[in-house]
Amino acid sequence: MAGKTQPEKVVSIKAVKQPVTSYDVARHAGVSQSAVSRCFKPGASVSAKMRERVMTAAKELGYEPNAIARSLITRRSNLVAILISNLTNLYYPEVLAELTQRFSAHGVRVLLFSLKSEADANETLQQIWPYRVDGVVAAAELSPDHVGEFEKRDVPLVFYNRHLTGAPVSSVCCDQEDGARQLVDGLYRAGHRTFAIIAGPPESAVGVERKSGALERLDELGVEDPPVLQGDYSYESGFSLADDLMNRGSARPDAVICANDVMAIGALDAFRVKHRLAAPADISVVGFDGVGPSSWKSYDLTTIRQPVRRMTEAAVSMLMTMIEEPGSPHEKRVFSGILKPGTSAQFTA
Amino acid sequence: MAGKTQPEKVVSIKAVKQPVTSYDVARHAGVSQSAVSRCFKPGASVSAKMRERVMTAAKELGYEPNAIARSLITRRSNLVAILISNLTNLYYPEVLAELTQRFSAHGVRVLLFSLKSEADANETLQQIWPYRVDGVVAAAELSPDHVGEFEKRDVPLVFYNRHLTGAPVSSVCCDQEDGARQLVDGLYRAGHRTFAIIAGPPESAVGVERKSGALERLDELGVEDPPVLQGDYSYESGFSLADDLMNRGSARPDAVICANDVMAIGALDAFRVKHRLAAPADISVVGFDGVGPSSWKSYDLTTIRQPVRRMTEAAVSMLMTMIEEPGSPHEKRVFSGILKPGTSAQFTA
Repeated sequence: MAGKTQPEKVVSIKAVKQPVTSYDVARHAGVSQSAVSRCFKPGASVSAKMRERVMTAAKELGYEPNAIARSLITRRSNLVAILISNLTNLYYPEVLAELTQRFSAHGVRVLLFSLKSEADANETLQQIWPYRVDGVVAAAELSPDHVGEFEKRDVPLVFYNRHLTGAPVSSVCCDQEDGARQLVDGLYRAGHRTFAIIAGPPESAVGVERKSGALERLDELGVEDPPVLQGDYSYESGFSLADDLMNRGSARPDAVICANDVMAIGALDAFRVKHRLAAPADISVVGFDGVGPSSWKSYDLTTIRQPVRRMTEAAVSMLMTMIEEPGSPHEKRVFSGILKPGTSAQFTA
Repeated sequence: MAGKTQPEKVVSIKAVKQPVTSYDVARHAGVSQSAVSRCFKPGASVSAKMRERVMTAAKELGYEPNAIARSLITRRSNLVAILISNLTNLYYPEVLAELTQRFSAHGVRVLLFSLKSEADANETLQQIWPYRVDGVVAAAELSPDHVGEFEKRDVPLVFYNRHLTGAPVSSVCCDQEDGARQLVDGLYRAGHRTFAIIAGPPESAVGVERKSGALERLDELGVEDPPVLQGDYSYESGFSLADDLMNRGSARPDAVICANDVMAIGALDAFRVKHRLAAPADISVVGFDGVGPSSWKSYDLTTIRQPVRRMTEAAVSMLMTMIEEPGSPHEKRVFSGILKPGTSAQFTA
């Protein structure tokens, strides 16, 4: 390159033109600046005629509001963060789509943080704070220290399907223990007496509650010490743990309670494809969540469906209230799951 | 309330305290303000010793960078938007998790927009512009007019598994036509001569390419006018269209090519559960995508797996280049899908 003359930098007109401001739009439309502001504020009251007039002027001038500059004045970024772990878990895409669309209807945009593992939470929170989000929905485990960080910054937080016992936090949950008890009851009523549990990972609060709900109810019914195997919510772990159950010295169970649908599907495949058992004739399998594939004909799971619409609606309205009315009391909302009987189990509802 | 004296408003110290600035941190740490700035800029070069010194001072003062204020100065918001339609399609959660984590590694945060239908695109773009995003990944259909809006604003755009023929846009795609041709070839080599196609919805470019790839190759092989039924990518549509194929007057096909895995799973269930056919003994079914459930033992689909890691890596690196080097040429990258043979079809690779 030596010896060559560098071409002069060409600065395009585009790059140096002054941005059009709301003041310009107001003058062009012959209205007040606050009227322009209202026209661009989601949910603000403004007449159709005024909106038309302002939007025409805005279009003619090429004006676009700057949400970022506005947020420095209003101290509202109109951004919320959603923290989600295991996005590829079949249950979460539905939750995420519902949350995003509901926040959107409130004029609020979603910053998505997908945690590879729960251990990422520290780092992720450091990434969230600089964006001055108005609030956070966490479908991921957070520690009391993490929750303290939210309080320090006055950032509203709603846990989705998690809670911290004893800590002052808001949460929306499905009643995991009650759901597990319903599953045990129906299996027991249908005549099952030999149970096994394929549980979730120990760090999953949801999984721990499902397991303890099932164990408590079994104990009340006089079923003692069923084997509890620990899975990781994946198809593969359901498959291999069901296989383990078949290879134990002791009698095989005739009812297997899985902590989620995907493990129940894996267990069904192991029993049917690998061990040539028929479900529900030889063995009963139940799941939890009510994900789409749970109703596919090859599985047709007996499961507890989480009421995702109601739960996401509650999470969004709670967070919006906390944002709009600082100092609102914390609230825990617990929804009952809905029993969905299928042909994967002999079950008497 | 009349007659009662309102209590004086208590203004907490928290509410009125001045925010700590990077200038305060610099003075406290005894370093320059630009050193502080570098310490908080993702990816910037700074010594471990300097970082330690600045971070300690920041922590002592309770300083937190304001990404929003910074973006007004740097004209980089460090935000990208991801537009995704049909988030609940089993294929997208994996794409979204990969994209989000990869952008995060670049210090860039993701604003998520989940489109209920492709028709929402207009409104969604109006929601995106005020956030002054640095770029957009679109896994949704956009029109040439929409693309024009990106150009007008100099906002880089990368299409994910979509493209606009003839338009100057960047895109990352899986080679849909080639994948469909591979599926036809393997089925034909295994002896199949009577085909049917369960296609995607006509507005899905991906579906149209998969269909035309299959039809072209069948035509080259002398298979004339196979029935083409139009589905909507859902399990239910795969199931009911397979059922329709069985109820037509003409001879039933012995090989069914489905435009995605989920419809192939629905078709398999219809053939097996409702019509008591064995796959692959009586009928062969193939899918496309390679979603998790395609390898569940009850289905074990012969399918084309999209190389999601490579494709998301390419999309992120393309968009980052376009953001960091304005004026970079547009680029289309097309990845071959990977044939994953299963037991759902008689198939000779």
